[in-house]
Amino acid sequence: MADINKNMEALGKVRSVIRETFEYGNRRAKEIGRENIFDFSLGNPSIPAPQELEDEIARLAGSGNSVAVHGYTSAQGAEATRAAIADNINKRFGAGVTKDDIYMTCGAAASLTISLKALTNPGDEVIVFAPFFPEYKVFVNAAGAELAVVPAEKKSFQIDFEAFEKRITRKTKAVIINTPNNPTGVVLSEETIIKLCALLKQKSEEYGSPVYLLTDEPYRELVYDTEKELPYLMNYYDNTLVCYSFSKSLSVPGDRLGYIAVCNKMKDNRDVYAAVCGAGRALGFVCAPSLMQKAVIPVIGKTSDISIYKKNRDILYNALTEYGYECVYPDGAFYLFVKSPEEDANAFCEKAKEFELLLVASDSFGCEGYVRISYCVTTEMIERSLPAFKKLIESYE
Amino acid sequence: MADINKNMEALGKVRSVIRETFEYGNRRAKEIGRENIFDFSLGNPSIPAPQELEDEIARLAGSGNSVAVHGYTSAQGAEATRAAIADNINKRFGAGVTKDDIYMTCGAAASLTISLKALTNPGDEVIVFAPFFPEYKVFVNAAGAELAVVPAEKKSFQIDFEAFEKRITRKTKAVIINTPNNPTGVVLSEETIIKLCALLKQKSEEYGSPVYLLTDEPYRELVYDTEKELPYLMNYYDNTLVCYSFSKSLSVPGDRLGYIAVCNKMKDNRDVYAAVCGAGRALGFVCAPSLMQKAVIPVIGKTSDISIYKKNRDILYNALTEYGYECVYPDGAFYLFVKSPEEDANAFCEKAKEFELLLVASDSFGCEGYVRISYCVTTEMIERSLPAFKKLIESYE
Repeated sequence: MADINKNMEALGKVRSVIRETFEYGNRRAKEIGRENIFDFSLGNPSIPAPQELEDEIARLAGSGNSVAVHGYTSAQGAEATRAAIADNINKRFGAGVTKDDIYMTCGAAASLTISLKALTNPGDEVIVFAPFFPEYKVFVNAAGAELAVVPAEKKSFQIDFEAFEKRITRKTKAVIINTPNNPTGVVLSEETIIKLCALLKQKSEEYGSPVYLLTDEPYRELVYDTEKELPYLMNYYDNTLVCYSFSKSLSVPGDRLGYIAVCNKMKDNRDVYAAVCGAGRALGFVCAPSLMQKAVIPVIGKTSDISIYKKNRDILYNALTEYGYECVYPDGAFYLFVKSPEEDANAFCEKAKEFELLLVASDSFGCEGYVRISYCVTTEMIERSLPAFKKLIESYE
Repeated sequence: MADINKNMEALGKVRSVIRETFEYGNRRAKEIGRENIFDFSLGNPSIPAPQELEDEIARLAGSGNSVAVHGYTSAQGAEATRAAIADNINKRFGAGVTKDDIYMTCGAAASLTISLKALTNPGDEVIVFAPFFPEYKVFVNAAGAELAVVPAEKKSFQIDFEAFEKRITRKTKAVIINTPNNPTGVVLSEETIIKLCALLKQKSEEYGSPVYLLTDEPYRELVYDTEKELPYLMNYYDNTLVCYSFSKSLSVPGDRLGYIAVCNKMKDNRDVYAAVCGAGRALGFVCAPSLMQKAVIPVIGKTSDISIYKKNRDILYNALTEYGYECVYPDGAFYLFVKSPEEDANAFCEKAKEFELLLVASDSFGCEGYVRISYCVTTEMIERSLPAFKKLIESYE
């Protein structure tokens, strides 16, 4: 009994590559000036929150209604907020959810840890598709389950179904998808989704118990080439839990607000929803931030001015491919996933540092040989960085 | 592998007695009018947040500095907030903490779940003293540890040291105290604290590994009979983690902000702090609400106008003891713990309902035969409720 929890200690001591790179950038900025560093490491929104949201926060703080504004909501979230979210989902996607299918969370990470704790038992497996957000492994293991990785389909970064079929077993309790994707920016096509959901249906029947689909959607509204909504997974598969966050769409990542939506057509909908409530309670979430729950009501389904991200993407994608970089076309989120011109992406990142370019090697995303470039930065920095990108690839010629 | 997590499902389906009573009150209010119900069930602050805090929230929302205000802070919290908290602790208590000993959390529940996950391994035991906040059991079990309950010392609701010595073993990884206490309102005396810490020191030496002390302090500033600060546990015992929340002191329970302070003098301080960071990450907390982290800076160590709670306590305590109720004197928090005039406190609560008084039976706090009366309500409701309390006890004569 002598030790504290060594797994937690290790998790607290290991820095993520993303964070390491960011810290390096801060040190380097002190040496040569911030204006000479091109930091593409962090996925932190760089555009302001909608003015309507700021105004609503200020209005609530000045409303003289302090006890209601800052008081506990019910554990599953304020009724008015859940109703507004359900309405928005139904208006946009016709998914038939009710306020009682919505559970408000402290952001995307909480949406995932709560869902995973609700669904899994020790020994269960959760499948993810490479490349994937590295914290998925932390969250899956924290729930007591094991991560099973399906290797990347490197042509278009859709799904390698052959590899997926080999990986799915009776131990598979859930599958996580993330579209638009971090780190590739790729959107899963409707064709991929139909095929995925058919397979999940088939396997659930074969196993006699559901394989749940967790769809991690903080980037849902960040798409740049279409006015059309991306496919809503509940409309394709009943055993779906949508893990949403307002962090990226409203540019409020620090304010920790998101939700879990449990598909209303799920056979054991009430049991799963209860397990979500129980898991939230066990993990210590109590209720999602109350002021923010109320403040988002007028902006649900809206976004910050994302035209800046589109502009950034276009400039960067066009320039980089012109210079000779290989890069899958990113439909959404705010990442480019670029093939490393040498086999070892970490060595490439070190080389990039010589040109003051801070990129993140893809290894920790479960897919070697690429770098992630976050373009949630100023357009002006992107423009200034282009000669450096050019020189970097030329150094490989 | 067929099932979802049945423990979580059960946790989500079981309503707490407190919540049940509150819901009953809402139904009853619809039948006979809110003004005819005397609801003493919930521990939800009833006084406004400090105006200074509301102003700071509005100022930040209007600052035009959206990306900084709403962006991610570092996982352990904004540096300026942690520094201000450390300064405040040192000024008040001389405890010698630094900003790097502070980890910002989403409130008291998170402070506890994170600390417990950081410290314990499966099979470890965590000791609590009855009566105790019922969610402690949920949090301890969620970390994979077992709860060990020391029975109440019913004379003064300090600590029954004989029972405690019997309960502490090599399996004991941590002890939780809560002063001022929910549900009794009692403050642990300095004498009790000195004795407790001496015993913890002795046992840690005997076992060759620390027994950690978690001090759950959301009510620290809610004391009514002294200007003096309550003893700060770090000054009595090095293996202390303070689990604090701003919920009650600033009347912002829904906004989810608190912190963990790891005693700087703890031998393995850096390892424990790292484990706290790791546990926060594993549970999905990422960072505490960013806007609130910044907004509290000017009001750290301050409180809402708690003179109302003092007034409520005095009116209720004086009247109830005059009518013949037996009640330990509550120094702080906003609860009275009253002996049930019949053995079965649940039966007493049912009887109280006949007089439209909603009280919470103490059974779920690990101590039978009492009721908790939350006086974080309007003074006016308390005054109106007094004849009902009088009639209730007279019905037992």
